[in-house]
Amino acid sequence: MIVDINKKNKFHIQPIQQRVVVTFNYEVHFTNNIFDLKNPTLAQAIAADGEKKPKKILAVIDAGLLEFCPNLSQQLTNYTNFYAEVLTLAAEPLLVPGGEAAKNEPKLLEQIHQLIEAAGICRHSYVLGIGGGAVLDLIGYAAATAHRGVRLIRIPTTVLAQNDSGIGVKNGINAFGKKNFLGTFAPPYAVINDFSFLSTLCDRDWRSGIAEAIKVALIKDANFFHFIHDHTTALACRDMDAMQQLIYRCAQLHLEHIATAGDPFEMGSSRPLDFGHWVAHKLEQLTNYRLRHGEAVAIGIALDSTYSYLLGMLSHQEWQKILKTLVALGFSLYIPELAEQSLSINNSRCLFRGLTEFREHLGGELTLTLLQNIGKGIEVHEVDVSLYKHAISLLREFK
Amino acid sequence: MIVDINKKNKFHIQPIQQRVVVTFNYEVHFTNNIFDLKNPTLAQAIAADGEKKPKKILAVIDAGLLEFCPNLSQQLTNYTNFYAEVLTLAAEPLLVPGGEAAKNEPKLLEQIHQLIEAAGICRHSYVLGIGGGAVLDLIGYAAATAHRGVRLIRIPTTVLAQNDSGIGVKNGINAFGKKNFLGTFAPPYAVINDFSFLSTLCDRDWRSGIAEAIKVALIKDANFFHFIHDHTTALACRDMDAMQQLIYRCAQLHLEHIATAGDPFEMGSSRPLDFGHWVAHKLEQLTNYRLRHGEAVAIGIALDSTYSYLLGMLSHQEWQKILKTLVALGFSLYIPELAEQSLSINNSRCLFRGLTEFREHLGGELTLTLLQNIGKGIEVHEVDVSLYKHAISLLREFK
Repeated sequence: MIVDINKKNKFHIQPIQQRVVVTFNYEVHFTNNIFDLKNPTLAQAIAADGEKKPKKILAVIDAGLLEFCPNLSQQLTNYTNFYAEVLTLAAEPLLVPGGEAAKNEPKLLEQIHQLIEAAGICRHSYVLGIGGGAVLDLIGYAAATAHRGVRLIRIPTTVLAQNDSGIGVKNGINAFGKKNFLGTFAPPYAVINDFSFLSTLCDRDWRSGIAEAIKVALIKDANFFHFIHDHTTALACRDMDAMQQLIYRCAQLHLEHIATAGDPFEMGSSRPLDFGHWVAHKLEQLTNYRLRHGEAVAIGIALDSTYSYLLGMLSHQEWQKILKTLVALGFSLYIPELAEQSLSINNSRCLFRGLTEFREHLGGELTLTLLQNIGKGIEVHEVDVSLYKHAISLLREFK
Repeated sequence: MIVDINKKNKFHIQPIQQRVVVTFNYEVHFTNNIFDLKNPTLAQAIAADGEKKPKKILAVIDAGLLEFCPNLSQQLTNYTNFYAEVLTLAAEPLLVPGGEAAKNEPKLLEQIHQLIEAAGICRHSYVLGIGGGAVLDLIGYAAATAHRGVRLIRIPTTVLAQNDSGIGVKNGINAFGKKNFLGTFAPPYAVINDFSFLSTLCDRDWRSGIAEAIKVALIKDANFFHFIHDHTTALACRDMDAMQQLIYRCAQLHLEHIATAGDPFEMGSSRPLDFGHWVAHKLEQLTNYRLRHGEAVAIGIALDSTYSYLLGMLSHQEWQKILKTLVALGFSLYIPELAEQSLSINNSRCLFRGLTEFREHLGGELTLTLLQNIGKGIEVHEVDVSLYKHAISLLREFK
């Protein structure tokens, strides 16, 4: 039956057209030593709500941090005591395991909900999430669903979380073996990026987050890519100044995109910021999350750049520059799981199943971002699998 | 430590101000016999997305309906076969228990998530929720959190759901003994109110939903209250024409409020639409949900109107008119649980604990809506418990 959407039908009374516009405002701060008593950034962020004080706060902390910051809970307590007119701890901080494990254990979600309930956290109280991207995704999901959303202040502690996942509007946990199967879009109340946490990172985590900066530079800002290219040595040697510049610009580009690209809650099919991500998500799954997200994104960038080159869009010189930048930073561009391209598409371990899974997660038509030039992404809706196989073989041989 | 929010601090680099504006559009349709093959309303709603067809749909149905509509699944199957160019069933419909039970069983949420996953429902597919308000709250929460939100078409089948809970932007389930402790704000893709379902309702459910219409009339539209008052006999005798007019106007007032009152996702402390609801939520809990939501709201309206009268805001004549209208429709204005006012405030069964729970759920300052006149609500932030006790005794004696 062909349906004419404009045809009046006798069953139909005049419908009501509903239009709901929701505006979210939040600040992304950059600071050092957030719990130094002389640093009012956090207290100021809460004082700025203009409401009766003191406000209850409940902290949920990435347990991975305590190895490097064993006094974190104590510092937080001292801080809240010092700024007692503004904030008060509603309960002892809750520790959750760091890394992807945080998103794979449904009991943790329940535990945070339980604590929010027990501590009497309301929509005008604050949950402080302190940790890496995965932990913040879990805490964000818990905060967004308790009382239909309590206020969340994210304090991202890794490069990846400070320049990408911790500053945006998404949260989520994994379920049914699928990354971020459960989650919501929920802007935070505020984000405070504290650079001093970066010195606690191991080399893998320091490097890993740079991949998202390269991604956003490649699709949006050639100058930023050249900045990264020119600073590979400094970045690889953990130069804090170069890293701070990288995080600031990367955060700025991500935030600009969310605010201005017209689809912050991703109701359409287009997802330019997910350049390189269909491969990345599949490789994380295939390696059982042995690969860090940023490491997987680096391979995804390398593969989709190579494919863009083979399609005749990216020049040989630009393509080589991208791959060399990734390698200079210490990223591997090839792992054995890429060979799972050769499996039948019916096998769930086949790399190209990642295309279907990516389309299903976004919904609608398959939409991949490729590179037209350094600094300019372009969307395609079809892929040539044999060309992708060729791209994989080029990566395997890349020196 | 007094915090000056404008004071620059040496730890602080220029923050990034993020502003995210999200616009949701949806239509609320009114029809009869939604699955009649000659009724294209549902097919038109899906065809209107302008995307490649056919679209997958997954139906979740209130099991309570099957007693009156035993062929509902078959009708749905026939409908999708007839409109196969537009929609296709992705799985057998899932049945969930009707009433508040749907919101008290966490396994149901998981079951819907599982089915969304297994059926390959993506953000551009559709979940159809068919049932009363509680079931739609559960389905809405499941749909809003799978893939960070798949499209939801609500088909409310009760008066309450058609004129209030099924048309708005909220969803939720109960947890830790608290109503709607878990949930999100998530506008539907569309709502289709099918009046023919109303004839399946028992008298209690038919009546119950009228309470929300009285509520919104009292705070926003005196003429609408007079319409209800003038039609109490018709409404009590299940006159379908009067009920359709009541539902349409009530839906319109609720939708107008959500769209124009400036806080659709309830980030502030004000909640005028929750007139009478602090009592209602507490009584539902105290009666273990023996009381229907609408029945509890009727008592809440009666109590808060009486309190408004005792405060000298509402005239004696207006107050009496409200109470008589409720009684003429068949509502009870007093139940024994109201006597639990006399318990100590430390006892969780004390009625006035409902004030704290209400404040905590909304967050921020206690904000109650009372009546200045019929058709005009007014917000207060303090309550006089002894005056409320007096109001309760007036209700007990009301004839």
